[in-house]
Amino acid sequence: MDGSLGDVSPPGRLAEPGEGISPEELALAARNHGLPLEALRYDITPPGLHYVLVHYDIPEIRDGSVQLTVHGRVRTPLALDLAALRSFPAVTLRVTMECAGNGRARLVPRPVSQPWLVEAVGTAEWTGVPLRLLLAEAGVEPDAVEAVFCGADHGIERGVEQDYRRSLPVDVATGDTPEVLVAYAMNGGPLPPQHGHPLRLVVPGWYGMAHVKWLREIRLTETPFTGFQQTTAYRYRQEPDDPGEAVTRMAPRALMIPPGFPDFMSRTRFVRPGRVLLRGRAWSGEPPVARVEVSTDDGRSWYDAELAPPDGDGRHAWAWQRWQAPWKAVPGTHVLSARATDAGGRVQPLTQLWNRGGFGNNLIQRIVVHCGWGEPIAEWGELRRGASSSPAGTPRP
Amino acid sequence: MDGSLGDVSPPGRLAEPGEGISPEELALAARNHGLPLEALRYDITPPGLHYVLVHYDIPEIRDGSVQLTVHGRVRTPLALDLAALRSFPAVTLRVTMECAGNGRARLVPRPVSQPWLVEAVGTAEWTGVPLRLLLAEAGVEPDAVEAVFCGADHGIERGVEQDYRRSLPVDVATGDTPEVLVAYAMNGGPLPPQHGHPLRLVVPGWYGMAHVKWLREIRLTETPFTGFQQTTAYRYRQEPDDPGEAVTRMAPRALMIPPGFPDFMSRTRFVRPGRVLLRGRAWSGEPPVARVEVSTDDGRSWYDAELAPPDGDGRHAWAWQRWQAPWKAVPGTHVLSARATDAGGRVQPLTQLWNRGGFGNNLIQRIVVHCGWGEPIAEWGELRRGASSSPAGTPRP
Repeated sequence: MDGSLGDVSPPGRLAEPGEGISPEELALAARNHGLPLEALRYDITPPGLHYVLVHYDIPEIRDGSVQLTVHGRVRTPLALDLAALRSFPAVTLRVTMECAGNGRARLVPRPVSQPWLVEAVGTAEWTGVPLRLLLAEAGVEPDAVEAVFCGADHGIERGVEQDYRRSLPVDVATGDTPEVLVAYAMNGGPLPPQHGHPLRLVVPGWYGMAHVKWLREIRLTETPFTGFQQTTAYRYRQEPDDPGEAVTRMAPRALMIPPGFPDFMSRTRFVRPGRVLLRGRAWSGEPPVARVEVSTDDGRSWYDAELAPPDGDGRHAWAWQRWQAPWKAVPGTHVLSARATDAGGRVQPLTQLWNRGGFGNNLIQRIVVHCGWGEPIAEWGELRRGASSSPAGTPRP
Repeated sequence: MDGSLGDVSPPGRLAEPGEGISPEELALAARNHGLPLEALRYDITPPGLHYVLVHYDIPEIRDGSVQLTVHGRVRTPLALDLAALRSFPAVTLRVTMECAGNGRARLVPRPVSQPWLVEAVGTAEWTGVPLRLLLAEAGVEPDAVEAVFCGADHGIERGVEQDYRRSLPVDVATGDTPEVLVAYAMNGGPLPPQHGHPLRLVVPGWYGMAHVKWLREIRLTETPFTGFQQTTAYRYRQEPDDPGEAVTRMAPRALMIPPGFPDFMSRTRFVRPGRVLLRGRAWSGEPPVARVEVSTDDGRSWYDAELAPPDGDGRHAWAWQRWQAPWKAVPGTHVLSARATDAGGRVQPLTQLWNRGGFGNNLIQRIVVHCGWGEPIAEWGELRRGASSSPAGTPRP
């Protein structure tokens, strides 16, 4: 490469006006994937439907080889294998996780990176050791200001070769709101390779970049971490040289299960005239969600959806909440939306919140639905069979 | 919609020269996903890494509600629930499955559809009832020519509203080479929703379109099936009005685990100078694969890889085969490729085999790799830790 690294690992850029998705963005979209929106029907996202973003390659790690080290500004450095980690009290939390770049591909201008639309989310039950217990065991020195987490995934990003690393302030790392976990189980089983097998960090309420996968090292430092993923990436900036604000907790967002059935290529939706139950989920990094409103006229008017409270059990406080709202579909073309407001009064915007990285963009979802036509395209017998097993929202004949 | 259906569900088209990936193609790429190529390291693809293509929505089906009907030209129509299906002898087969459209997005001109690069493949162990046993139970009438399989997924495609349907000739449906399964388990557990929960067809050796998911009806017919997925889609055609040839079995293909480590955005690969073990998998719809060759000079010269035989046990006859080949990486930029030849002498082409649907395109894979630079970008200690858990092919210090 001899100086040519910049050519193959260039700085971030914005797409030109009207520029289609590039081959590089497609290569990321073919590897990483979102939640098919009909899977919002499941309280816990089934394996393979939870969104996945892998910066480099999924590393190959055998359980037997795992040694999580806790060192730096601690009194007693630790080196823990899986058995040692399992000897600590285990906690299971249901957590909704969203990529900080969710919605990026709909921004104008479009930041060129993983091209998410609205689907980079999922909910799982994570089991592991509270990080605060590991840090208490090691004994954090008074001068420690951050915990730096290092994963086993290795690559190059904008010219910087690195292992994936992120940090948390000591008060977050040693706190219990949220309860940060070093997780060794997902939905009751070992972590799948793409979700960090065998160990990952889980930071409830924070965007996905904080949940370091393939975790192998925790270093307490007396100075703030200045690595790539902390100070170059994952900042809210308007200009490249703007130091920017750190990306941390998830903004509130509601998503709707697209009602009816789709066209394969355009993904346009079709519903029969009649009553439709609109359903979906809503979440916030500062839970709970206090209100979900629905619009069926492209945001001109809104009405309240019925919103389920967070499951009473505190283990679900960081998980999405169910909502539903009735709609009477009449012939014509409609634009359906939902928007969430969290307990802190933060509400989803009707116009995009733009930044160079395309982070934390919780612009409301828009679903275009066509209702009714003169002649059913298929015989109604066939339609009924389709409807009987299609997602909620398909009107029953 | 009143006649406007064509506007939202238009005929298939080819991308204009230089046209980027469209929002519609991106919407499909965000829902469906391929196999991250480093996952070729696993004999059986872990949950969530096997490729998935869903034409419409993933239907919601509760196990209790399942009734698989077998009717039409049979002596005794059947209606079977899961318990009844489990009462038949169970067979487990390890099967490599590939989307017929794999490689489509690299074609010039590009057919506009699900934009696969090379990664639409995966291998799983499927357990179920041999279809021939179900058909023997029902008693196929002598005048039956095809079995038509209907799934519960419902949508519109190029203006045609439909439940997903495909057919097989009676001799294939009642044959045992391949052994066609009505599968109720994947890798030892219930089918995940996106893989056809609770029932799907598995047709070893055939492209994915034949493996009907969410299977609920099998109809024996005295005339060939002329439905959309049989006569409009999944045909090898050069012109829109060309009747075309039916897409059936997988063409031979070899894929390589990209060695070294990637740049996040460009996915360009980097390796250190020295010995690299190139590894991958190869398969064919007419197994076994007889030969895999490797090129490290963009196809100018080729040398034989070491190819594992199909696992002796016949249950693996339809699964991919492991291969490996040594390479000495020297500073510079290299293009790595592998190509498979099957027992029938079919070999992957060096130039694209184009058709309007972008089907059965098994053009050889090209991996661009950069080797060596003056100064390591990261300290070697960090690199060593990265390499120790990175995919095969990263040279060990």
